[in-house]
Amino acid sequence: MRAAELVDAGDVRLRDVDRPEPASDEVLVEITDVGICGSDLHWYEHGRMGDRIVEEPLVLGHESAGRIAEVGSDVEGFSSGDRVAVEPGVPCRRCEYCRTGRYNLCPDVSFMATPGTDGAFREYVAWPADFVHPLPDSVSTRDGALCEPISVGLQAVDRGEVDVGDSVLVVGAGPIGTLAMACARAAGASEIAVTDIVDSKLERARSFGADHAIDGRAGDVAERVRDHLDGGADVVIEASGARPAVETALDSVARDGIVVLVGLAPDAEVPVSTYDLVRGQIDVRGSYRFANQYDDAIALLEDGRIDVGALVDFADPLSEIGEALERASDPAILKGMVSVGEE
Amino acid sequence: MRAAELVDAGDVRLRDVDRPEPASDEVLVEITDVGICGSDLHWYEHGRMGDRIVEEPLVLGHESAGRIAEVGSDVEGFSSGDRVAVEPGVPCRRCEYCRTGRYNLCPDVSFMATPGTDGAFREYVAWPADFVHPLPDSVSTRDGALCEPISVGLQAVDRGEVDVGDSVLVVGAGPIGTLAMACARAAGASEIAVTDIVDSKLERARSFGADHAIDGRAGDVAERVRDHLDGGADVVIEASGARPAVETALDSVARDGIVVLVGLAPDAEVPVSTYDLVRGQIDVRGSYRFANQYDDAIALLEDGRIDVGALVDFADPLSEIGEALERASDPAILKGMVSVGEE
Amino acid sequence: MRAAELVDAGDVRLRDVDRPEPASDEVLVEITDVGICGSDLHWYEHGRMGDRIVEEPLVLGHESAGRIAEVGSDVEGFSSGDRVAVEPGVPCRRCEYCRTGRYNLCPDVSFMATPGTDGAFREYVAWPADFVHPLPDSVSTRDGALCEPISVGLQAVDRGEVDVGDSVLVVGAGPIGTLAMACARAAGASEIAVTDIVDSKLERARSFGADHAIDGRAGDVAERVRDHLDGGADVVIEASGARPAVETALDSVARDGIVVLVGLAPDAEVPVSTYDLVRGQIDVRGSYRFANQYDDAIALLEDGRIDVGALVDFADPLSEIGEALERASDPAILKGMVSVGEE
Amino acid sequence: MRAAELVDAGDVRLRDVDRPEPASDEVLVEITDVGICGSDLHWYEHGRMGDRIVEEPLVLGHESAGRIAEVGSDVEGFSSGDRVAVEPGVPCRRCEYCRTGRYNLCPDVSFMATPGTDGAFREYVAWPADFVHPLPDSVSTRDGALCEPISVGLQAVDRGEVDVGDSVLVVGAGPIGTLAMACARAAGASEIAVTDIVDSKLERARSFGADHAIDGRAGDVAERVRDHLDGGADVVIEASGARPAVETALDSVARDGIVVLVGLAPDAEVPVSTYDLVRGQIDVRGSYRFANQYDDAIALLEDGRIDVGALVDFADPLSEIGEALERASDPAILKGMVSVGEE
Repeated sequence: MRAAELVDAGDVRLRDVDRPEPASDEVLVEITDVGICGSDLHWYEHGRMGDRIVEEPLVLGHESAGRIAEVGSDVEGFSSGDRVAVEPGVPCRRCEYCRTGRYNLCPDVSFMATPGTDGAFREYVAWPADFVHPLPDSVSTRDGALCEPISVGLQAVDRGEVDVGDSVLVVGAGPIGTLAMACARAAGASEIAVTDIVDSKLERARSFGADHAIDGRAGDVAERVRDHLDGGADVVIEASGARPAVETALDSVARDGIVVLVGLAPDAEVPVSTYDLVRGQIDVRGSYRFANQYDDAIALLEDGRIDVGALVDFADPLSEIGEALERASDPAILKGMVSVGEE
Repeated sequence: MRAAELVDAGDVRLRDVDRPEPASDEVLVEITDVGICGSDLHWYEHGRMGDRIVEEPLVLGHESAGRIAEVGSDVEGFSSGDRVAVEPGVPCRRCEYCRTGRYNLCPDVSFMATPGTDGAFREYVAWPADFVHPLPDSVSTRDGALCEPISVGLQAVDRGEVDVGDSVLVVGAGPIGTLAMACARAAGASEIAVTDIVDSKLERARSFGADHAIDGRAGDVAERVRDHLDGGADVVIEASGARPAVETALDSVARDGIVVLVGLAPDAEVPVSTYDLVRGQIDVRGSYRFANQYDDAIALLEDGRIDVGALVDFADPLSEIGEALERASDPAILKGMVSVGEE
Repeated sequence: MRAAELVDAGDVRLRDVDRPEPASDEVLVEITDVGICGSDLHWYEHGRMGDRIVEEPLVLGHESAGRIAEVGSDVEGFSSGDRVAVEPGVPCRRCEYCRTGRYNLCPDVSFMATPGTDGAFREYVAWPADFVHPLPDSVSTRDGALCEPISVGLQAVDRGEVDVGDSVLVVGAGPIGTLAMACARAAGASEIAVTDIVDSKLERARSFGADHAIDGRAGDVAERVRDHLDGGADVVIEASGARPAVETALDSVARDGIVVLVGLAPDAEVPVSTYDLVRGQIDVRGSYRFANQYDDAIALLEDGRIDVGALVDFADPLSEIGEALERASDPAILKGMVSVGEE
Repeated sequence: MRAAELVDAGDVRLRDVDRPEPASDEVLVEITDVGICGSDLHWYEHGRMGDRIVEEPLVLGHESAGRIAEVGSDVEGFSSGDRVAVEPGVPCRRCEYCRTGRYNLCPDVSFMATPGTDGAFREYVAWPADFVHPLPDSVSTRDGALCEPISVGLQAVDRGEVDVGDSVLVVGAGPIGTLAMACARAAGASEIAVTDIVDSKLERARSFGADHAIDGRAGDVAERVRDHLDGGADVVIEASGARPAVETALDSVARDGIVVLVGLAPDAEVPVSTYDLVRGQIDVRGSYRFANQYDDAIALLEDGRIDVGALVDFADPLSEIGEALERASDPAILKGMVSVGEE
């Protein structure tokens, strides 16, 4: 089968490799759709992420869906041809974090497209059946592949304890921010503001249902948030990682509110006034990947509550993976995808 | 009656003032014991706190207890002579925060010993009956006065969701840190480490029940915490407000752990790595004063679970209030008190 | 002004009474719309509710809205003409339940249309300003009056911890069940089944958004719920109070699920298998009236997430209050209303 | 090795069987101590539990501890001779319940001493390493074996959300009730009442730290609970399963309180007033076995907060297993144990 391997920074090559055999607890998934994530672009451009370095060829891509091609001997409940989304992180199932349902924090997780675990820019993936999720008829594999970023949004909304009637500010209208916004709405948020510094993203946030789209380049963002959201947001979801964005997040939250940090910026340190956190009894909470969110993501797609298709700017074939990664690097692009096996 | 009024920075005067009359929903409390808090010392030394300035004479002291001297016409359940602790902050009872049980965040709270609301360094205080709490026979008014800092500790422990079996680090072994430690134990913490930079405080933390007392002046505190607490503290309570202390707090918490900030340092900004918060899914939570903690504080004193008396270094008469405030400024002093009306 | 007083079982009379004067913390509301609740009908038919008996003339009606006619001297934030919904229960603001945000449990609550507190079937009501809620322009007073039953639904959904992706069963498609269903959807429920024993109610539940409307008269309801909701409902909301309905609720819940009881049936005892509760780790939770739900109810109306108008079968003038109460007693009627002052 | 097999109701036989080999993820534990549980007695007396029937010889005993004898090839962190407690239920690690940390509800759990999974009345047990917990030096294997019922108590206390200052009623002073009481204290309960109908159990409850031991045979228990606990218990833990005990539990809880059901009585149906549950906004919650409690149980033993040794009435050798089971059936016995391999 063909697989797109990152061999060095900026160098992805299509190769013929052996098709994997599913172990007894695995299924073999014929991949059809893979989303391109910012972290794929980071690996592609730098060949590293912080202190983790690509030393062996690595297949990128961790937002994927496809069809069951083969079923391991101990697996029940799947048949060939079933359409499925693939959850990219498989934890150890035995550590304290796994036992308590927080498997996103498992130190021994195998996460697709990180050194040691190939991702989904290839034709077939063998994967543990309990991390493969059936898609209902009404959900396409293209949409199903995006269960991954939806799950990131759901985790953030859970961490923010978003509830009926809450006001929410989303900082950063990239794919995660936009999906977090939709997840917040699904969890009952009544009024949602979004801020970004790119016009097209503000425009799309509005079309995705933001009540207020605030231009982050003009004047005091937090003040305008407070005007719109009556004294501050009950919950702020910071989805950019940029230092000024985090500062906006901290300045915009209401007393006793929650700021959820999702955006990752490896080297950023943000000056935080502990005085403000204490006086306002504010929570600042990191939100890392996701645990137990895929089923809810699928339910939101089935409901039609998240029109994830509107996020997708293009879908290129696997044979053009290099070009696809370049195109996806354009800041105006919200989500690029790779179609596998449709040529 | 006599009242000790702060008239300017460093200038407290005993004056004869009118004894207050309790309103229909109030009781008149004959004050017997008042703790001296760090904030009293701050007001005394600077005549201001941030942008709030003492313009009218202000009676300090907000950790108080005494005996009922008179009962307002609409008040039930109190009789003259009843021994009581006085909760110093009376909220509006009507705003969103009051209605939802978070009255510590009421923007219209009247809090003793802040401009506009006299404190308890005086012989009598008229106070709303629902913020006056009966003391059981086994609890002295001296101990009862310290329900206030115990309540601060309980609020921090609540915010940290301390539970049976948790490991806890307390940063700063002053009165709040020491009491927070005792409250954490009462809530089920199994292993507690304390760090400070004063020998005598480390010593007293140990005698108060700390499993590990870590000298903050030597080497890498967070590393030693991780050695003692198996990979990091489930909950960290930061009770000093100092910037290096906050940094220790952030470095010492386990994955998915909670850092509670209680210490107030008006001008401090602490650089926070949002990357670490996201990757570890860490919570940083401010904890402000307290709401609904006095009854539990009294229960802990009645149980004997908190030996608050061991915290008290001296108790001076009201006539020597100036000297008492000076003595309490000594960093080796954990808790000084003022005895009212016993001369 | 005119007021409709219940003087005896089945006997409601329109009388001229003095228009109330608002106290300093009250507003005077000119009532325009009042919903008729099952409890109004119960008082009207029996002149009593359990051991509480109507001994003095009592004005019924507790689902009301109107316009501000006068503002008490200490009240801020209201002007004459403001359109408002009136929250019918005013608690003591001082007891343990009020202090902790659970004022629905205040033992000294004054609740409209119960002996001692007149309701809203009259032209003017003087009411504490903090229990009067402004309506946005897009919400009519007729809809605003129904914030009351919506709040009952929201309380049930809160008690059931309904969350994104949950499956929910609502037992009983009367006004409370129907609104609870809409609230559950707003809180993120992905799949909702409703059961009732009246065809027209099942029909309306379907038009209100139920995914499955199950006829309670045919066969094993719980089994069909399990078929539809994959092994049982994550949350069941029992809104009828009838014994077989409660049994259906208990039989239909998934392992580790929550059954919320909202329906009140004064004399009913239901046999419960504690074995099943233990083995399935089931919660059965009472939900009583509501606390802190009006703002969220208004937000849902403003959002358009609850089309409460579709619930209303008729609106009769105050002059025909007796007829209105009779009409509302028809089991096919979901919600009758009384229009005040529009003749 | 020797194993005590239940071959029929009332018929346990010591047999020589093959010593198990640990699989790659297992350790082999040389059993030293096993507690006798009420369910062991039930199986022994009846040869069945509800509709589950002992058809193959079954080794009873699921409260066990011992020493590591052998370590599977993939297991890290254990050495021969390590002293350990054995957690008796091994779940599938893959289902919805396992993934979300509620593995006590896993439908595919293998639980010791139930048909299909042999228990610990034998010399060696091979068991997955992640369900074997190291004991600290200060905790004996005899005490360690009783982590199992302590975990049941901790689960009940978790389900009851017992917190600092709560009042707690424990109904039934058998081993589970007594340990739940100690766990409630560890979680911060300030005032604890216990009720039972056996004098010796009331006596022992008192010596275990109950503030009030209430004789269930005399007069109105709930009324006396309300006298002692100021209007009712915040949390009630029902540990007997008997119908009158459940009724006492329901009658004794405060408004907005929680009744936790732990006691299992297969055929009991208890009449419950849904009216009371709704009006008081009461929770009734089943608590089933335990998940993620062993580490906390061990911490409580290490702390000395639970003197579990005081519970043990006798410890008989494995060779006298039949007599031991008979002795343990005496209602005055709190906890009997079996010592393995010490002859």
